[in-house]
Amino acid sequence: MKYCSSCGALVTHEIPDGDNRHRHICGACDEIHYKNPNIVVGVIAEWQEKIILCRRAIEPRIGYWTMPSGYLENEESTEEGAQREAEEEAGIDVKMGELLTVINIPQIGQVHMIYLGQLRSPRFQAGIESLEVQLLAEADIPWDQLAFPTVKLALQHFFADRQTGQFKLHSEVLRKPAKPG
Amino acid sequence: MKYCSSCGALVTHEIPDGDNRHRHICGACDEIHYKNPNIVVGVIAEWQEKIILCRRAIEPRIGYWTMPSGYLENEESTEEGAQREAEEEAGIDVKMGELLTVINIPQIGQVHMIYLGQLRSPRFQAGIESLEVQLLAEADIPWDQLAFPTVKLALQHFFADRQTGQFKLHSEVLRKPAKPG
Repeated sequence: MKYCSSCGALVTHEIPDGDNRHRHICGACDEIHYKNPNIVVGVIAEWQEKIILCRRAIEPRIGYWTMPSGYLENEESTEEGAQREAEEEAGIDVKMGELLTVINIPQIGQVHMIYLGQLRSPRFQAGIESLEVQLLAEADIPWDQLAFPTVKLALQHFFADRQTGQFKLHSEVLRKPAKPG
Repeated sequence: MKYCSSCGALVTHEIPDGDNRHRHICGACDEIHYKNPNIVVGVIAEWQEKIILCRRAIEPRIGYWTMPSGYLENEESTEEGAQREAEEEAGIDVKMGELLTVINIPQIGQVHMIYLGQLRSPRFQAGIESLEVQLLAEADIPWDQLAFPTVKLALQHFFADRQTGQFKLHSEVLRKPAKPG
């Protein structure tokens, strides 16, 4: 950030009175511009023991696999956001279930909230952000072709919990996300 | 947002190619400026059946009570954020526990994540954002003097769960937050 989004003047980067962190502050209108972490929402959507994965048609990690997920938008709840991503990326209609993981990645300011879900029908169709969509059994998950460490972690928890018959919330912090490639 | 924070030119508010929502787009450098929901983190910190509440010294809702909570900052996890707020607002050292509530407030773009916690010692001290801090038994909670609907909801879940002896995650959506006052 170089310019104030309210008045267009140059901003400085300093600690405001009564604060303890550097913020962008407008030199003209004094507005303080805060920048906070973003939420990524997603869903592991199941149909008869299989789950939906999408092969990404966009960067980063084009060609790699992920559950439907994306940034939470304003004016939607976290569950609604995950449901929307499922519809947009995989063309699926999901009955949302419990929250499975909260994965923090502090270095990049992201909190990933991945939910359980059940397909209402076995219909699916790749959206414009997906090269393809598949319903995959555990044995067919492309573990070495997953797009992000968060995807792998959430899927590991999902299959481990499913084996025990009891899903629970997993809170994780990824300190150094693996480099792509 | 009126001006591009990268180049200072005027922004327009329209739907970018391949998107389905209005965004602020720079007319000069073409940057798309996304605005997403914020995370509020907090903790219900317990010491021998009592919990820590703070009376707010800042607007909004000055003079009303809340558990320690505030916006998640970059470069910290949600648990670390809640722990930091506890230290800043109540001067307490908290051993963090499980996530108790995820409360969505879509209209104002907030997701409140309230954790369980245990004080490591009974020491507490009001920080600059608190008028006072108290360790309160359930019978002494000022239910009609709580700062926000999210505070009431989280405390209700906490005491109800504590009575059953089993804490679980509560996911909530507040569609129309009560007006202050």
